[in-house]
Amino acid sequence: MPELRQNFATKEWVIIATERAKRPKELARQEVPKALASLVASCPFCPGNEGKTPPEVLRAPAAGNASWQVRVVPNKFAALARDSQLTRTIHRSRRSIAGFGVHEVIIETPDHSQVIALMDDAHVANVLQAYKSRYDELSLDPRIAHITIFKNHGLDAGTSLEHPHSQLIATPVISSQVRGRFQVALQHHDDFGECMFCQMMEEELAEQDRIVFTTEHFVALEPFASPTPFATHIFPRRHMSNFGDISTAEIADLARTLRKVLGKLYHGLGNPDFNYTLRSAPAELHGVKYFHWYVSIIPRLTRVAGFELGSGMFINTVPPESAAEFLRNVKTEAAAGA
Amino acid sequence: MPELRQNFATKEWVIIATERAKRPKELARQEVPKALASLVASCPFCPGNEGKTPPEVLRAPAAGNASWQVRVVPNKFAALARDSQLTRTIHRSRRSIAGFGVHEVIIETPDHSQVIALMDDAHVANVLQAYKSRYDELSLDPRIAHITIFKNHGLDAGTSLEHPHSQLIATPVISSQVRGRFQVALQHHDDFGECMFCQMMEEELAEQDRIVFTTEHFVALEPFASPTPFATHIFPRRHMSNFGDISTAEIADLARTLRKVLGKLYHGLGNPDFNYTLRSAPAELHGVKYFHWYVSIIPRLTRVAGFELGSGMFINTVPPESAAEFLRNVKTEAAAGA
Repeated sequence: MPELRQNFATKEWVIIATERAKRPKELARQEVPKALASLVASCPFCPGNEGKTPPEVLRAPAAGNASWQVRVVPNKFAALARDSQLTRTIHRSRRSIAGFGVHEVIIETPDHSQVIALMDDAHVANVLQAYKSRYDELSLDPRIAHITIFKNHGLDAGTSLEHPHSQLIATPVISSQVRGRFQVALQHHDDFGECMFCQMMEEELAEQDRIVFTTEHFVALEPFASPTPFATHIFPRRHMSNFGDISTAEIADLARTLRKVLGKLYHGLGNPDFNYTLRSAPAELHGVKYFHWYVSIIPRLTRVAGFELGSGMFINTVPPESAAEFLRNVKTEAAAGA
Repeated sequence: MPELRQNFATKEWVIIATERAKRPKELARQEVPKALASLVASCPFCPGNEGKTPPEVLRAPAAGNASWQVRVVPNKFAALARDSQLTRTIHRSRRSIAGFGVHEVIIETPDHSQVIALMDDAHVANVLQAYKSRYDELSLDPRIAHITIFKNHGLDAGTSLEHPHSQLIATPVISSQVRGRFQVALQHHDDFGECMFCQMMEEELAEQDRIVFTTEHFVALEPFASPTPFATHIFPRRHMSNFGDISTAEIADLARTLRKVLGKLYHGLGNPDFNYTLRSAPAELHGVKYFHWYVSIIPRLTRVAGFELGSGMFINTVPPESAAEFLRNVKTEAAAGA
């Protein structure tokens, strides 16, 4: 029997289509992706080509003989312009703002062929520390309303650049989608006097069916109303509205957690294309009791079709309980070694 | 200079990224798609295989010696079950409804190789008439809250079935995405005393920049805050909240309009993958002054990436004014003959 489930954070409905259920292995990548070279002369993100990017805004030094481990640079083909004025034009149905914003690239490693799933934890922590440094600095700019940090891995996830990188886009507006989530969370807080995410985590930890694994500071789980197969969320156990409030110990633990989730996807589903995105409250809502930041990881195993576009509802052929069970049983190399 | 534009119907922002602007021809399909056979023995939707689908709920007879022109059948692999009870379960953060709903397939033609872009207008009108008949009948079922009619054309649009078909999914809930649009439209009506869609159409007809073409009863345009390249909307000029209120003359005119829009995409962009969806008020909002139904056509020329998933904002590299100009200049075969 199929089931409609309501996403508690958006109130959107998802159809868990058990009649069309797919086994996880059916969704795994069948062909082995081509091996990449460690260094590609034409790649603007490879060592030796540092001059091909705009001047860097942040560099994490390397431990060995490489000159850097992580670099952050402005996006050469930025979707928004850093130097424009924030002018709003309102003309009946047509409302616009000159495209002020910040668009940066976080180059995660000098190694063109590397993936986060196979990095060591200290390196992943340096990537996350770069996210935090840029998040903290840009949060101080009063022209910026919201910061989206995200990663696109693979063609189906919207990138054609192979070299491992993430991106940051800071916008002069809070999007309607994001604002809607804050409103749902605020309403829940005012109705029940609790953070809906803290409360959900408590329920999920009691029930266990959708938990992938837990660490000292984080919980990795498949959401109850998961819109797509293997969508995985990483929640900090401690209530924090803003990603910038993460501690050094939590960054180290998030690095292990993120690497392990991506490792389970990599080994279990054959290095699938995926996106992840960091969902945090913006600076103007710093410290609110009703929102809780988290990382949302979305493997791109299926295509969005007309029903999803026209209704906003998704049809998910892998119940999150099956996805969690499958992921619990995937051994990651590091986990096998740890 | 890039520009942020606000979608008037959802209040979501879109980045029109002029710095990254692509010429329409760069987005067109480069390879010629393989020619399909008119009749495929293994296709469940081809003539001779009528017994392979569940019993049909509607048939439009053919003019010639074919036994039918359009058939509507229940989806054999339905995402929702027609025979279940509408039971709602509420358990703190976990809310669900047994998967009641209706999922039907509209087989648009007996010819496996046909596309709407190249059909004759009377045939397209029969497809639209089938939509209306099913919409009207299912609107009477009190268990159904909303009906989504949509089409997926091509792999990137989420279909693997080649035979031309559309689908209808009737759900026992109004999705949060759809409900949000009604709320925006209601708020506009209460603020300004007008239908925001009628008003937008008036502005667009005065300005002309984003109009693709107009007919006696319809306006085809690129929306001001178009989230993706060549997204095209077809609005009835007459205020109607519900698709079911379309007249026979309007169906004939919508058939011409839809065929012509799809023809311009077919010829101009090399038969791109696309979705379309019919956005209508549900039965419970029949006749409201604030909502206006329309057809939304979305060519699938780009991939949704992490920024779009994490923020709800889209980056569009083709300004709608350029898309409209390009489409105005594409000659369709029928238009050349007419």
